[in-house]
Amino acid sequence: MRFRITPQNASFFEHFADLAGHVLDGANAMRDILGLPQDERSAAAERIKEIEHRGDDATHKIMNEANTSFITPFDRDDIYALASRLDDCLDHLEAAIDIVVLYGIDELPHGVDDQVDILVRMAELTAEAMPRLKSMRDLQDYWIEINRLENAADQRYRQMTAALFREEQDAVQIIKLKAVIDEMEAAADAFETAANTVESIAVKES
Amino acid sequence: MRFRITPQNASFFEHFADLAGHVLDGANAMRDILGLPQDERSAAAERIKEIEHRGDDATHKIMNEANTSFITPFDRDDIYALASRLDDCLDHLEAAIDIVVLYGIDELPHGVDDQVDILVRMAELTAEAMPRLKSMRDLQDYWIEINRLENAADQRYRQMTAALFREEQDAVQIIKLKAVIDEMEAAADAFETAANTVESIAVKES
Amino acid sequence: MRFRITPQNASFFEHFADLAGHVLDGANAMRDILGLPQDERSAAAERIKEIEHRGDDATHKIMNEANTSFITPFDRDDIYALASRLDDCLDHLEAAIDIVVLYGIDELPHGVDDQVDILVRMAELTAEAMPRLKSMRDLQDYWIEINRLENAADQRYRQMTAALFREEQDAVQIIKLKAVIDEMEAAADAFETAANTVESIAVKES
Repeated sequence: MRFRITPQNASFFEHFADLAGHVLDGANAMRDILGLPQDERSAAAERIKEIEHRGDDATHKIMNEANTSFITPFDRDDIYALASRLDDCLDHLEAAIDIVVLYGIDELPHGVDDQVDILVRMAELTAEAMPRLKSMRDLQDYWIEINRLENAADQRYRQMTAALFREEQDAVQIIKLKAVIDEMEAAADAFETAANTVESIAVKES
Repeated sequence: MRFRITPQNASFFEHFADLAGHVLDGANAMRDILGLPQDERSAAAERIKEIEHRGDDATHKIMNEANTSFITPFDRDDIYALASRLDDCLDHLEAAIDIVVLYGIDELPHGVDDQVDILVRMAELTAEAMPRLKSMRDLQDYWIEINRLENAADQRYRQMTAALFREEQDAVQIIKLKAVIDEMEAAADAFETAANTVESIAVKES
Repeated sequence: MRFRITPQNASFFEHFADLAGHVLDGANAMRDILGLPQDERSAAAERIKEIEHRGDDATHKIMNEANTSFITPFDRDDIYALASRLDDCLDHLEAAIDIVVLYGIDELPHGVDDQVDILVRMAELTAEAMPRLKSMRDLQDYWIEINRLENAADQRYRQMTAALFREEQDAVQIIKLKAVIDEMEAAADAFETAANTVESIAVKES
C-alpha cells in the first residue's frame, strides 16, 4: 500500500479549481436560463444565485487560507488578486441574468447568443487552466485564447450596441437591452482580466 | 497624578474613527437633505460636500501617515485598503445626493426611505466598530450585522428596480430614479466591502 | 568621446514617459476626432484605437519589467499602480470616442469642448511630469495643478448634466449625451487618480 503525500499547499490549487468550476457552472446556468420562456426565468435564476454563493464561499476560503498560511504557493497578493478576478467573472454572469429578470426583459437583444457562447467558452478554458497553476506549465495557450475571445466578444458588443441605437426607437427598450449587452461585455472583460492575472503570476514565478 | 501613555500609533486608530465619523455625518446629512422640499435640497447639498471634503482630508492623513511611519499598527496595505473603502462609502452617499440635485429629481423613488434607513444604520455600526480596531476585539458582530443589512438593502433594491420597470412608463423618469436607486445600492455594497476589509485584517492579526 | 552611463533602471522612467506620451496622443486624437463631421469620425476613431494599443503595450512592458527586475526604482506595487492609472486615463479617452461613434451621436453635448480642453491640458501636464519621476523633484506643481483642473472639470460636468436634464426632452438623446459627458468626467477623475498616485509615491520616497 502506498500513501499519497499531499503537499502542504495543494489546497490552494484545489480551491482555485473549485472556484473556476463555479464560474463555469454559472456560465452554463446563464445559457440555460436565457433559453427559457420569460415567465420561467425568475424561478430558474435562483440557481445562478446559489452558484454565486458557492463562488463567494470558495473565494472566502482562499482569502482566509492566504491570510493564515505561513507559506503560500505564490505571492499572497497574487492569490487575493486571482481569487477576486475569478469571483468578478461570476458576479458579472449573475448580474446579467439579474438584469434580465429584474428589468422584466422579454425579447433578448439580437446577437446575445453569440455573447453567451463566447462567455461559456471562456469559462471552460478558465476552468481547464486552473489545475495547470500547480506546475505553471502550458498556461500560455489559455491566456492567448482568452485574449482572442475577448476581442471577438468586443466586436460583437460593438455591432450590437450600434444596431441597438440605429434600430430601436423606444428609449425604455434601449435602457433594458443596453444593460444586458453591457453586462455581458463586462463579463468578457473580467475573464480577460483573470487571464492577465494568471499571465503576470506565471511571468513572476518563471 | 497619572499620565496617560499614548502608544506611538494611537493616531491611526483615531484617524480611522474620525473618518468613520465623517461617513456617519454623511449618512445623516443624506437623510436630512432627502427630507427637504426639492427647492431647498440644492443649498443643503453643500453640507454633504463639506463632509466629503473632511472625509478626503482624513483619508489623506491616514495615507500619508502610513507612507511615512516606520511602524504601523497593522499591515500598510490594509491601512490603505480600509481608508479607501471607508472613503468609498462617503463618496457613494454624496453621489446619491448629487444625482438627486443635478438630475432635478422631484419625487423620490418609492421605497428610498428604507434604503436610507439601512445606510444610516450601516454608518452607525461602522463608526461604532472603528475604536475596537485597536484591540481587534468584538469586531465579529459588526461585520456579521453589516452583511445582514446588505442583504436587506439588496432585497429592497431588487423590489424597487422591478417595480420601476413594471410601473413607470416615462423613460426619462426611469433614467433618473434608477440612478438614485443604483447609487444607494452601491453605497450599501461599499459598507459591506469595508466590513469585509476589517474582517480580513482581523483574521490576519489574530 | 564620452559614454553615457545609463543607470540600470532608466528604462522604467523611459517607459513611464512613453506611456504618458501615448496618453497625450490619445487626448489630442480625441480633440481632432470630435472636430470632424459625424460621417468621418468612425474611420478616424481607428487612430485612437491604435494609440490605445500602444498604451497597452507600454503598460505591459512596465508590468513585465517590474515582475522580472530584481531592483526597481521605487516600490513594485507603486509601479503597477501608476502604470495602471495612466492606462486608465487612455482607456477613458478612447471610450468617450467609442461612445460617440457607436451610439451614432451627431450633435455633441453643449459644453463638451471645455471638457476636452481640460483633458488635453491634464494629459500635457502628466506627460511633462513623468521625466521628473527620476529625480522625484518639482512634482508638486503637477499634482496641485491636476487637482485644480479636476475641480474645473467637475464643475463643468455638473453644469452640463443639470442642463441636459433641464433642457432635453428626448430620452434617447439624454442616454446618448449623458454617456459622453460621464465618460469625459471619468477621464478627468482618472488623471486626478494618477496624480494622487504620483503624490503618494513622492511622499514615500522623500
